[in-house]
Amino acid sequence: MIAIDLSPTLVIGTGLVGASIGCALTRAGVTVHLSDQVSSHARVAASRGAGTIARPDPDAVRLVVVAVPPAALAGAIERALEKYPHATVTDVGSVKGTVLAALRREGADLSRYVGSHPMAGSQRVGPLTANPGLFIDRTWVVTPHDTSSAHAVLDVQELARLCGARRVTMGAAHHDEAVAQVSHLPHLVSVLMAGRLTEVPAEHLRLAGQGVRDVTRIAGSDPGLWRQIITANREAVRIELAALQADLAELAAALDDADAVTALLERGREGTRALPGKHGLAPVDYARVVVVIPDEPGSLAKLFRDIEAAGVNIEDLSIDHDLEREVGFLAVQVAPDQADALGRAMQAAGWTLRDREPQL
Amino acid sequence: MIAIDLSPTLVIGTGLVGASIGCALTRAGVTVHLSDQVSSHARVAASRGAGTIARPDPDAVRLVVVAVPPAALAGAIERALEKYPHATVTDVGSVKGTVLAALRREGADLSRYVGSHPMAGSQRVGPLTANPGLFIDRTWVVTPHDTSSAHAVLDVQELARLCGARRVTMGAAHHDEAVAQVSHLPHLVSVLMAGRLTEVPAEHLRLAGQGVRDVTRIAGSDPGLWRQIITANREAVRIELAALQADLAELAAALDDADAVTALLERGREGTRALPGKHGLAPVDYARVVVVIPDEPGSLAKLFRDIEAAGVNIEDLSIDHDLEREVGFLAVQVAPDQADALGRAMQAAGWTLRDREPQL
Repeated sequence: MIAIDLSPTLVIGTGLVGASIGCALTRAGVTVHLSDQVSSHARVAASRGAGTIARPDPDAVRLVVVAVPPAALAGAIERALEKYPHATVTDVGSVKGTVLAALRREGADLSRYVGSHPMAGSQRVGPLTANPGLFIDRTWVVTPHDTSSAHAVLDVQELARLCGARRVTMGAAHHDEAVAQVSHLPHLVSVLMAGRLTEVPAEHLRLAGQGVRDVTRIAGSDPGLWRQIITANREAVRIELAALQADLAELAAALDDADAVTALLERGREGTRALPGKHGLAPVDYARVVVVIPDEPGSLAKLFRDIEAAGVNIEDLSIDHDLEREVGFLAVQVAPDQADALGRAMQAAGWTLRDREPQL
Repeated sequence: MIAIDLSPTLVIGTGLVGASIGCALTRAGVTVHLSDQVSSHARVAASRGAGTIARPDPDAVRLVVVAVPPAALAGAIERALEKYPHATVTDVGSVKGTVLAALRREGADLSRYVGSHPMAGSQRVGPLTANPGLFIDRTWVVTPHDTSSAHAVLDVQELARLCGARRVTMGAAHHDEAVAQVSHLPHLVSVLMAGRLTEVPAEHLRLAGQGVRDVTRIAGSDPGLWRQIITANREAVRIELAALQADLAELAAALDDADAVTALLERGREGTRALPGKHGLAPVDYARVVVVIPDEPGSLAKLFRDIEAAGVNIEDLSIDHDLEREVGFLAVQVAPDQADALGRAMQAAGWTLRDREPQL
């Protein structure tokens, strides 16, 4: 196999994703040029190690990565195909079909274009947070189309590899259906639930526990970005919303039928188990041991020393703070057969335990 | 003020909640008797320090706490009122109106009955996990009705106080509306979303990120228990489901209108901000620093030593594991102005950083 050299690569758009790709490629030895409509962004990205703001020789550019907001993608890709006549062109948008359809409408030769979608991002959208490790072990979907050249596909796969991502290859329509199901519908469900809270009296919100917080967390994301994503993928999203409407109507009609309610609850639990678990294994029900921690320096380090002295393997953990008192809780998940031993060891070391399972 | 002595108290039903109340009261110096349809459960609870399995003198019992499954509550409360003629009787069910209505239908004198709802629970339902600290700083709703005696209300408030909970007093209908809004509807939304995943191909589920996991987490709870809760509160839940149906229909109809989509997304974000934040303050947008940690003993303790040596205050943290490699990530949330300093300190100490914001 002949090594692929992606130098020089041009990254257009130096927000978090573009700048992080620049950092990862630079670290991998690729020469990276940066461009951004806001030139100060490109300069900041360059200062973070993402590449150079010097302009490349258009005929020499090997790869163009278009990392602009969703609504601007198709135009930027088309211009890149024209301006860099020998380059493979890819983008990092989270919806692929709309962009491909727009490019096809223009009748351009798309053999050098291959879409991609690195599944990592951030609410922090500026280049200041650029990070060469952003894509390590994250899924990076490569979406060739029927006129993509094999050469271009290999280039984009190499891009994902150099960034440390796990590559998945599927068609654009297939990709858009998948993200509608596992990302866009969950986002809208979270938004709808959170939206209802705007009509709930503050006195009632005092009864809110961890459950509603988990369900509504992603509804706190940037509406401007999500408007573009949902709008771009609206055909696939429409199908998922219709299915959800049918399920919701079924639930509303079944409220008086305990068996039907049970069936819906069991189907939901089955769905949670369908999601791939940690380390690629089936999900495991861990036991939780919850320790009260004073909200002061040093307590966490001491706590971890004591947990490790107990000789158990921590599977997961989370910190929660009490609403009114300056006290925190550390929830440690361990294998069920280790929970009692850990609990006893923590109490012996002077810690106070509290249960922190989801409230009902 | 004259101190209230709740001795002897009888706890009926020694699952997690009943046994934990027994432990908390025993620790507070109250004499506690335990009873359970499954006598081995009561013995296990007693062995965990929840009280004694000796039968109390019925005429002497001061307080009865009924902690049986929702569907059995009304009957158990009624029997307790008859059998313990001088006792205040309360229950710990998560729905109050149905139980009160059932008791009223029987025409019993309810002056000694006051409902309550300690908002703590667990997927682990046995007495083995009993814990006197289960209710510390959790909300405990006390729900008097129009014929509750002041004496009985004071007893139940004292119960909540001795368990370390934060007391909130409201009527049963008011309580049921509140939990329908902030607990039962979010649960059903999570269940519906998770249920849709049962129809998603495994290949698509590979693209699932943290967002859908958060939204669907509580759908993994026990369907049998939730069937009882939803059924008991179905009138309040029906109203919330109807409102959600209207919102969902509005969203489905608005998909082609980017401004309308934006308005719905913004309303969702507003809803997340309506939830009370940590320490009773308004929610804060923290910055996240994500560190790659090897999945081996000692690494977390070393990591916390290094984080604390960096001199920043940890606001929150979580651990995630990669799906396929034996590697974990620790996400540390800090005040935005401390993130850069922490990131640099971690890198200087030899740790690798990765961003872990929710994927799009």
